[in-house]
Amino acid sequence: MTRPIYIRNAAELITFAGSSQSPLTGAAMGELHPIANGSIWIENGVIQAVDRDEVICNQYRNQLGDALIIDASEKLVTPGLVDPHTHLVFAGSREAEFDMRLKGRSYMDIMEAGGGIHATTTATRQASKAQLIAESAHRLDRFLLHGVTTVEAKSGYGLNLEHELKQLEAAQELNEKHPVDIVSTFMGAHVIPVNRRENPDHFVDEVINEMIPEVARRGLAQFNDVFCERGVFTPEQSRRILEAGVVHGLLPKIHADEIEPYGGAELAASLQAVSADHLLKASHAGIKAMATAGVIAVLLPGTAFFLMTAAADGRRMIDAGVPVALSTDCNPGSSPTVSLPFIMNLGCLWMGMTPAEVLAATTINAAHAIRCADRIGSLEVGKQADLVIHNVSDHRGLQYHFGSNHTHTVVKNGKIVVEAGSLVSSLPL
Amino acid sequence: MTRPIYIRNAAELITFAGSSQSPLTGAAMGELHPIANGSIWIENGVIQAVDRDEVICNQYRNQLGDALIIDASEKLVTPGLVDPHTHLVFAGSREAEFDMRLKGRSYMDIMEAGGGIHATTTATRQASKAQLIAESAHRLDRFLLHGVTTVEAKSGYGLNLEHELKQLEAAQELNEKHPVDIVSTFMGAHVIPVNRRENPDHFVDEVINEMIPEVARRGLAQFNDVFCERGVFTPEQSRRILEAGVVHGLLPKIHADEIEPYGGAELAASLQAVSADHLLKASHAGIKAMATAGVIAVLLPGTAFFLMTAAADGRRMIDAGVPVALSTDCNPGSSPTVSLPFIMNLGCLWMGMTPAEVLAATTINAAHAIRCADRIGSLEVGKQADLVIHNVSDHRGLQYHFGSNHTHTVVKNGKIVVEAGSLVSSLPL
Ligand SMILES: [Zn+2]
Ligand SMILES: [Zn+2]
Repeated sequence: MTRPIYIRNAAELITFAGSSQSPLTGAAMGELHPIANGSIWIENGVIQAVDRDEVICNQYRNQLGDALIIDASEKLVTPGLVDPHTHLVFAGSREAEFDMRLKGRSYMDIMEAGGGIHATTTATRQASKAQLIAESAHRLDRFLLHGVTTVEAKSGYGLNLEHELKQLEAAQELNEKHPVDIVSTFMGAHVIPVNRRENPDHFVDEVINEMIPEVARRGLAQFNDVFCERGVFTPEQSRRILEAGVVHGLLPKIHADEIEPYGGAELAASLQAVSADHLLKASHAGIKAMATAGVIAVLLPGTAFFLMTAAADGRRMIDAGVPVALSTDCNPGSSPTVSLPFIMNLGCLWMGMTPAEVLAATTINAAHAIRCADRIGSLEVGKQADLVIHNVSDHRGLQYHFGSNHTHTVVKNGKIVVEAGSLVSSLPL
Repeated sequence: MTRPIYIRNAAELITFAGSSQSPLTGAAMGELHPIANGSIWIENGVIQAVDRDEVICNQYRNQLGDALIIDASEKLVTPGLVDPHTHLVFAGSREAEFDMRLKGRSYMDIMEAGGGIHATTTATRQASKAQLIAESAHRLDRFLLHGVTTVEAKSGYGLNLEHELKQLEAAQELNEKHPVDIVSTFMGAHVIPVNRRENPDHFVDEVINEMIPEVARRGLAQFNDVFCERGVFTPEQSRRILEAGVVHGLLPKIHADEIEPYGGAELAASLQAVSADHLLKASHAGIKAMATAGVIAVLLPGTAFFLMTAAADGRRMIDAGVPVALSTDCNPGSSPTVSLPFIMNLGCLWMGMTPAEVLAATTINAAHAIRCADRIGSLEVGKQADLVIHNVSDHRGLQYHFGSNHTHTVVKNGKIVVEAGSLVSSLPL
């Protein structure tokens, strides 16, 4: 039995309407229900009440003396941010490629030169599980400092059974030890390993026949993802891989249409994938099909920013009825950032989304994109107490005062893990 | 007599060559001289020694017991960041205009609708000096959290003698009370006040005959700036204003060629202005003339980011021999940010500058742009001890891990003012 937490009197406390059943779409994405002078009562890691302060204060008047009271006046309270697309677990760092990029070399150029992702694959294969955990825990700490309380984490730097399992086990152990919750995705089909290029279909067979069944048997992942792009996996290979995952209970996700229109959005719709991600070059027909099928678009403008290309057209997707989520795509090659707050800035300034829409896209819709909206993603009674107190008085302030991290306090699972912008010292890792 | 500070063993400690006499230009802007295992010894607010750790450790071996020792291993040490162009002192906030912008209305549209800058002018005129100081001190705190130890601050929201003096006095008082150093610029010619549009030249006369002499007489500013743009001040009016400033000892700066090529860069060159700022649309001839005259280009890509336009071509300017500095342009209308670290990200990813160049542009060249390079802007013996310890091991990491503030520790004038990313509690304001 832990001490209740009473967060009181926020200038704005953000809630959504009817959002736990299905992701927000269209106009509903832009409709926040902010509570002025909003308060929240937390016990045993669970949200017990959310309302105007006078209501909460009256309801719990006999327990005020027991509670840890946090004054949120002049501050914004939102759900904990959810990052639904990261390549969290890897070894090494690739600052050195940065100069290549600044000189105009493309991501595909670097990949084809055997650099890029293959450098990370080599480092990740060479790393011990303990080393992967240590490097990734540092990233998780930094996610937390940016208000992110749940992340999805993909494998895909092992590229064979042994090292894919190692990556997923590292994620599992991090999920147990670190305050940030991790939802795992198997992504053996991240790229075709250098020594398998002669016969990509043999590698696809290995993913389908060796990796997916073992990952599923061990319960190491909930989702199955594939990089569907020319020179990586074709739509036909992608379909085979994702359908094999479904057979083993892994829900499909897809890296789609990042570099060119390649039928990824259409494939996601036809498979009723949970999400299709990237979508910079998705066709109109693909977007329409996603809207009809209810596939969530996970947009990754940080990648566009870092690769100096135009971002996906978030505005068009929302207007077409596609539920949109935003994510860092945290990875060492194309988006070495943990700053979901900055991704929101890009959502507004690069993708035509409103401040309300980018909040929905990084909380409730992001939770839906990793099938966790029953327990996280919004401040509702009965949900896990994951929330952020931001150093702004208004949700628009997060975007208006761009380029900064405004995270002040983070509560994760009913525990204070960030205070005054710093990690509390008692974190386990 | 304060306790010496010994910062030891940085992974990289950044120095420049021969930079205090004149700003870095051309290839020299990209040539850092990082010291590996670099250390620095500080006494009485002044840098006493900068070298490899073994040298410093030996040199001060008899004083090690007296010193406050800060371990900077695996971290980057740079000079304190210098922001050479801010509109720091103002009242109010303009989140509400943000929606207008997201719907595609231009800055000039909003200005012509009587909104924009005029809303801030009204709020600033109505505010007491104490209120201006309080609101601006909060911004200075946040600058400090982003590693910025010196800012230039412009007036220009008063637009008459009384309120311009109030703004400049607020800056002066902040400079005395707050750890961040402030260099003041008079900018009565920021915009033509709404009720003076019938006869702009009368307003120009007022700036020249009433404001400049009084500002100079009271010693409230070192620089004189003007917004030279169609619909604001013509090149001819700008010239008159800047020449009048020179007569009174105020050095010229100019907001030039932001919206269209308007001869601002050329004017800056012909006046041998200290800097010309913005320059998004500066002509080739103007850039060439600036290089010849040694005028510093202060580039403000945050404004372009926030207004969703293309940034100035920093690469072209460096290649043309213009000394380049970078700045936030912190102001409530077109760049409501204090994040000079993010401005550096834009320098690399939007302006084609290298990680080395953006560091020079926010330290030594920025110091030259406000004529302080004799005492700040680089880690050299005898200079003021202003420095930042960043949570990255390599200067490229500041840009590679984009969208985050990596500031860990800030030393200002030999005192620790930021520790583990938080302000120390003893700050005066
Ligand atoms: Zn990805
Ligand atoms: Zn300005």
